[in-house]
Amino acid sequence: MTPVTVLGLGPMGRAIATALAAADHPTTVWNRTPGKGNDLDATIAGSAAEAISASPLVVVCVMNYEAVRAVLDADALKGRTLLNLTGGSPQQAREMAEWAAEHGIDYLDGVILNGVVGGPDAALLYSGPSEVYRAHQPTLAALGENGTYVGEDPGRSAGFNMSLLDLFWTSMFGVVHAFRLAAAENISPAEVTGYAKAMAGMLPELIDLVAEHVAADSFPGDASTLTSAAAILDDLLDTVRADNLDDGVLSAGRATVQRAIEAGYGQEGFSRLAVLWA
Amino acid sequence: MTPVTVLGLGPMGRAIATALAAADHPTTVWNRTPGKGNDLDATIAGSAAEAISASPLVVVCVMNYEAVRAVLDADALKGRTLLNLTGGSPQQAREMAEWAAEHGIDYLDGVILNGVVGGPDAALLYSGPSEVYRAHQPTLAALGENGTYVGEDPGRSAGFNMSLLDLFWTSMFGVVHAFRLAAAENISPAEVTGYAKAMAGMLPELIDLVAEHVAADSFPGDASTLTSAAAILDDLLDTVRADNLDDGVLSAGRATVQRAIEAGYGQEGFSRLAVLWA
Ligand SMILES: NC(=O)c1ccc[n+]([C@@H]2O[C@H](COP(=O)([O-])OP(=O)(O)OC[C@H]3O[C@@H](n4cnc5c(N)ncnc54)[C@H](OP(=O)(O)O)[C@@H]3O)[C@@H](O)[C@H]2O)c1
Ligand SMILES: NC(=O)c1ccc[n+]([C@@H]2O[C@H](COP(=O)([O-])OP(=O)(O)OC[C@H]3O[C@@H](n4cnc5c(N)ncnc54)[C@H](OP(=O)(O)O)[C@@H]3O)[C@@H](O)[C@H]2O)c1
Repeated sequence: MTPVTVLGLGPMGRAIATALAAADHPTTVWNRTPGKGNDLDATIAGSAAEAISASPLVVVCVMNYEAVRAVLDADALKGRTLLNLTGGSPQQAREMAEWAAEHGIDYLDGVILNGVVGGPDAALLYSGPSEVYRAHQPTLAALGENGTYVGEDPGRSAGFNMSLLDLFWTSMFGVVHAFRLAAAENISPAEVTGYAKAMAGMLPELIDLVAEHVAADSFPGDASTLTSAAAILDDLLDTVRADNLDDGVLSAGRATVQRAIEAGYGQEGFSRLAVLWA
Repeated sequence: MTPVTVLGLGPMGRAIATALAAADHPTTVWNRTPGKGNDLDATIAGSAAEAISASPLVVVCVMNYEAVRAVLDADALKGRTLLNLTGGSPQQAREMAEWAAEHGIDYLDGVILNGVVGGPDAALLYSGPSEVYRAHQPTLAALGENGTYVGEDPGRSAGFNMSLLDLFWTSMFGVVHAFRLAAAENISPAEVTGYAKAMAGMLPELIDLVAEHVAADSFPGDASTLTSAAAILDDLLDTVRADNLDDGVLSAGRATVQRAIEAGYGQEGFSRLAVLWA
């Protein structure tokens, strides 16, 4: 079994080291602040360089790219493979890949989309040179069997992640704002939650529909047009403003719909924004 | 069976008239533009006033409140019950209730949340005087057995609707923007759709969690704090801007997170915004 080093023992780093050790990979760990990892079935290294030297594959999963740069030792990494599972933008991943190439380090970038690392529902994406991915694929299976290689561009897994986080956080703004508006209208969480869940439950089907429209480059307005969405959003904005609530997210969205209508797409479906929104 | 009149034969008005006739209510219909409703099991009236005079219960479901005001005849409605199923804001519903009271008309307001009117999954909410609702409840069951009375305030059913539309449309902005960002990152709909559906599938559980936090007035940051949400949103905004896409919705949301952090809530959960966002 390939020895693996894990740098960073936050919740994710711990889960990664645990999964690798459970799959019988000799595992070496290191964390900036000492005293972490004593309960893991892993060797605790005294320095990042020492940890890196222990394994041909080094996984880094720390808070952000600034922390990545702080922990990585280029000399120690030379000739090894670095897998970076730290969250960040596609640009950051590409810059890290360039830095690695300059230092003779094989580089893979990855994201942990969801699920428990090492568990049956874990979904991880990887990008970077395909031969590097293939070489380590058997080891990476320990992190989640649903690992998917998404391409040579090292920024690609982060690209998927950013698209999904866009969906997630924008929706979460909707969730909290909906509860805030309900409260302003004297409606308790208990009263509205069941309906809200039913509403959210419609999204997967609508995601399929938008994807179909984009794939066909055709955005029929038969269910609901941008013009009718605008009318509903205007009632909603009137309500939000009458309740003296912040309307920032909704009015930014409304402005986008307006631009689409002014560009002549008023009778098309809302899905048109999936290609038009720039 | 109580005779019922339906004013407006758009898709919704048609569905309403169809459901009432199917439940054996003598049904009279009217639409501004003639020639609609010939295929319905209903009497077509020559004018709105004539239609109103035919029934003790009059349902109006037209495009908006401007259209409602255009079709309603106060003299003909006097002494009858008006159920308004036209979409609009709580304020509009309350104004309509005042107008009805001034003209001796019993007024109920309602919203069609989802499902097919008359079908088993139709969800309708009603608000207004409880005795008026009770008197007509057996008739309203024809529109959907999941009808729920949500209170005396005639604006309340519209309040529920606005909260749910806030969740829905904000999420839909997330859906279309996520596809747009994926395209900018060279990721096709087919590649990202499965992950996006899984992401959206997490929302119902998170809606429950936010509701629990609000009910307990406690917003633990154990899963994810406002500070960590801010860091993720910053990576996301960097990506959106690097791709030259509009960042209006996301930056408005990010600004709200910033205000919460500056107010001292950085270590609390994102759910804090459900009460803080004003
Ligand atoms: N948690 C999740 O659910 C989740 C899900 C998907 C992706 N991710 C991503 O996974 C990464 C790790 O997340 P996490 O939740 O495990 O932990 P985290 O709280 O994001 O980061 C903690 C780790 O980063 C280290 N660190 C922070 N600043 C450092 C610096 N300047 N130099 C060296 N080390 C530094 C910490 O070391 P010390 O102990 O010394 O502070 C600790 O090991 C993040 O990029 C996150 O976006 C997390
Ligand atoms: N469709 C849905 O899925 C849905 C779901 C929930 C709620 N709603 C709400 O239900 C209401 C009706 O929706 P809809 O989809 O059936 O149709 P719609 O397209 O919103 O409205 C069409 C109806 O409004 C009438 N109308 C428009 N302007 C008028 C005016 N100035 N004077 C008189 N009549 C006028 C039309 O008459 P003409 O034929 O003469 O133009 C027609 O009867 C809306 O408020 C909508 O928000 C709809």
